[in-house]
Amino acid sequence: MADRRSSQRVPPTTVRRLSAYYRALGALAERGVPHVSSKALSDLAGSTAPQVRRDLAYFGSFGTRGVGYSVDALRAQLARILGIDRSWPLGLVGVGNLGRALLAYRGFRGPEYKISAAFDTDRAKIGAVVEGVRVSDVASFADEARRLGLAIALVAVPADTAQAVVDQVVAADVHAILNFAPVQLRVPEGVRLSNVDLSMEVESLTHALTDGRRGAGGAGCVS
Amino acid sequence: MADRRSSQRVPPTTVRRLSAYYRALGALAERGVPHVSSKALSDLAGSTAPQVRRDLAYFGSFGTRGVGYSVDALRAQLARILGIDRSWPLGLVGVGNLGRALLAYRGFRGPEYKISAAFDTDRAKIGAVVEGVRVSDVASFADEARRLGLAIALVAVPADTAQAVVDQVVAADVHAILNFAPVQLRVPEGVRLSNVDLSMEVESLTHALTDGRRGAGGAGCVS
Repeated sequence: MADRRSSQRVPPTTVRRLSAYYRALGALAERGVPHVSSKALSDLAGSTAPQVRRDLAYFGSFGTRGVGYSVDALRAQLARILGIDRSWPLGLVGVGNLGRALLAYRGFRGPEYKISAAFDTDRAKIGAVVEGVRVSDVASFADEARRLGLAIALVAVPADTAQAVVDQVVAADVHAILNFAPVQLRVPEGVRLSNVDLSMEVESLTHALTDGRRGAGGAGCVS
Repeated sequence: MADRRSSQRVPPTTVRRLSAYYRALGALAERGVPHVSSKALSDLAGSTAPQVRRDLAYFGSFGTRGVGYSVDALRAQLARILGIDRSWPLGLVGVGNLGRALLAYRGFRGPEYKISAAFDTDRAKIGAVVEGVRVSDVASFADEARRLGLAIALVAVPADTAQAVVDQVVAADVHAILNFAPVQLRVPEGVRLSNVDLSMEVESLTHALTDGRRGAGGAGCVS
């Protein structure tokens, strides 16, 4: 399987679907399934067969007519494209209520990426071990980031301190950030920032339901 | 403040910013601040002053030159627009590792919305009380949804059972779903579905970092 277009940028929506395919292939591998059709893969990942074929053709992976894709080979190829054919240590800043939940989340304890360091400003938390991870003083972030080779930070601090934390993370040469604080943050060029705001997600739903009650809504909507 | 355009649909990106403003106003109210300028509000919410003015003018809220917006009045107006001037019970399906984290998350225990019911298929979990919420058999979802008036479901089950759970949720007339399972789900017209996939978020970052290592990346990017 040639990576014939590796120099092209992959659209973000495609990258997200590749993640879904990777997860579906993992489930198939666990069950010992050797091959999968684009139709079966699309069903597992909530996509469509033509979409799967388009997404994978992007990387020169076409499967074999009547056989489909090799589960192991495609999974390895996707891992490489997603950058998870190696192990990434994640640094968590903020060991509050949400931070503890993230530490407990098994998805952040896998072979591809796991929370390897946690930081807080609270003296009462520093030194404690939460879910097997020792909490360090956020003042030591740069040192720990260098020592552990952190490339990605999860930021789960209150909104009013998030920008200062992100500035500190960026100053420590950590250039990929997943922010959970309910605030839009500024980052310099070259830094990638993704935001997850659970309250915002719920409020989009309550707004839609309220809109519907007022008679303005009702159409099916997937966001 | 007249709600002069309440019949217009608000774009989803505007709704998300309104959530951020609402949170920022809550922090100001806690500090007893009576008025706020569009500039100060935009700084707190990570927006810009012109954007704040555009977003709020949508609802006929213009503030007063030299004084700004009344924190309490604007907060009440945004609560109404977001549909959180009432209390929403949330139903959680799936009390695994992520489900427990969601139950522990203080953002889902507030006055505007809180997880009021939890469901699982696992006999060992049914009847247990997790974070103050009793876990019920998912078979009783429709009855409980009716009894509690559930309008929103959080779905935190494994990917391969998520579609069946969502079908059950929809059949129980719960028409707003926040899905955490790493799979794209099908819902009928009239049902609103939002997806949060933490692994996908991290893999978008690892992909970008890997892309960067290959020399194709480097531009600042906020997604």
